[in-house]
Amino acid sequence: MMVKSANLRHTTSTLRVRYAETDQMGFVYHSHYLVWCDVGRTDFLRELGAVYAELERDGLLLAVTEAQLRYHAPARYDDIIRVETWLERVQSRMLTFGYEIVRVEPEPGQRLVTATTTLIALDRQGRPRTLPPDLLSLLRNAQYAAQP
Amino acid sequence: MMVKSANLRHTTSTLRVRYAETDQMGFVYHSHYLVWCDVGRTDFLRELGAVYAELERDGLLLAVTEAQLRYHAPARYDDIIRVETWLERVQSRMLTFGYEIVRVEPEPGQRLVTATTTLIALDRQGRPRTLPPDLLSLLRNAQYAAQP
Amino acid sequence: MMVKSANLRHTTSTLRVRYAETDQMGFVYHSHYLVWCDVGRTDFLRELGAVYAELERDGLLLAVTEAQLRYHAPARYDDIIRVETWLERVQSRMLTFGYEIVRVEPEPGQRLVTATTTLIALDRQGRPRTLPPDLLSLLRNAQYAAQP
Amino acid sequence: MMVKSANLRHTTSTLRVRYAETDQMGFVYHSHYLVWCDVGRTDFLRELGAVYAELERDGLLLAVTEAQLRYHAPARYDDIIRVETWLERVQSRMLTFGYEIVRVEPEPGQRLVTATTTLIALDRQGRPRTLPPDLLSLLRNAQYAAQP
Repeated sequence: MMVKSANLRHTTSTLRVRYAETDQMGFVYHSHYLVWCDVGRTDFLRELGAVYAELERDGLLLAVTEAQLRYHAPARYDDIIRVETWLERVQSRMLTFGYEIVRVEPEPGQRLVTATTTLIALDRQGRPRTLPPDLLSLLRNAQYAAQP
Repeated sequence: MMVKSANLRHTTSTLRVRYAETDQMGFVYHSHYLVWCDVGRTDFLRELGAVYAELERDGLLLAVTEAQLRYHAPARYDDIIRVETWLERVQSRMLTFGYEIVRVEPEPGQRLVTATTTLIALDRQGRPRTLPPDLLSLLRNAQYAAQP
Repeated sequence: MMVKSANLRHTTSTLRVRYAETDQMGFVYHSHYLVWCDVGRTDFLRELGAVYAELERDGLLLAVTEAQLRYHAPARYDDIIRVETWLERVQSRMLTFGYEIVRVEPEPGQRLVTATTTLIALDRQGRPRTLPPDLLSLLRNAQYAAQP
Repeated sequence: MMVKSANLRHTTSTLRVRYAETDQMGFVYHSHYLVWCDVGRTDFLRELGAVYAELERDGLLLAVTEAQLRYHAPARYDDIIRVETWLERVQSRMLTFGYEIVRVEPEPGQRLVTATTTLIALDRQGRPRTLPPDLLSLLRNAQYAAQP
């Protein structure tokens, strides 16, 4: 489930680890990877033309309802990190994103974390709602990478 | 798996939601529940007499290697929250903790999040190691609640 | 300015340092003390009967407009910490709080951080407003400790 | 003191506001600007060839001993932000950095926060030490912008 599939469309977000994200073990504290997944998800949507900040202003909230993380190796302060994001599943009220977080520097390509998060669509009052039809079809079309 | 079992020993940690933990949706941002699980886990160990800060000074690091969270209802600013923690599984190199995070105020008893985290024992150099035998037997004995 | 004055009313908040609050230097990362000041300020208001969560629901936002911190000694993981909070200055649109953050365990009484934050009263649209008259007089009366 | 001086060398760091950095007021929570200052400071040093991660491995810790922040306007989710960083003062055991945090998008050039932080040089045991002579002269030379 957490394996990145070759035929799913991916987007890539790059970030550098902040000192504030480390803990006294000398590594990134484990909760911060969820923040990076959120960055990846926002970039995924943005590249489709669906800016989450605007969706929210239009009354669509996407709230995390489930998260699963596997930690393979620790990120460290000042590392450059790449978050790859894809859409695992598109439903009318729920989206599941997959993530692979990889070190770019100093050990390029080392896999750090794989994760999935499931988000539920809510209205401004926090009630479940369906995704707008145009966003839904955008997401369904965008899920798979274009054939070469 | 994430269901709290009646015959497992539980400990209870109580905290109040901080403003810094909210996000612009008006709820607690989803990564902070992992911090609360960590608080619960530290209290669980402390009640057994195993102070994690001391374990770490003695060369035993417990690093999170897996986390699963289900978000049932959102915590809000200033809510009083209870984290119930128990040991799901004890292995010579790995521990799995279970958590149930519940609102105490203003809606008492509302279940917010259920979670599990698996931790691997590492030495100071970050290499896998076994748990010290006395800690291991303490944890095995402590996993189950005393019979009435 | 940052010296706790004996005749100002103080409130006390106690907390335990979380692992997530440490950084790789082995101490609490310096931004988290602002979160603890916020906890202290919320408790100060609560003890007066002014629950900030309710003020906010009634349309009064208190936004930090200035902060000053002096770091005297570092807090560490699992330390028990006390935040003492008092009102330095009450104006019709602005409040200045003072804080002294002290270690309780393991070295009782060690001063860690002194700080002040100034907050401006805003309405829901983010425009400056005056504090409600009853809150203002509550705060002015509460600033000074009762004479013995 | 917090005014950016034209003849001081500046470096620029650009970042996008994360959802995790907002609070229920709808703005960035005020403690996170200290994290962005840290990002700016790390970039300032890196551009001089002084990688802080390496300094720390060599036994030089720079710990924040004082911070002052003025909040002029709030940053919001998904804004693009620029942190300008310069060296206000170089002493043999202490460095004072100045920061101006400005919005780049959507309202370019809006000043959000001005800040200074003073850092003290510590050895691995947390004792004050002097900066290494070569770093000290590098910083002194780098403080002022080259004349045109």
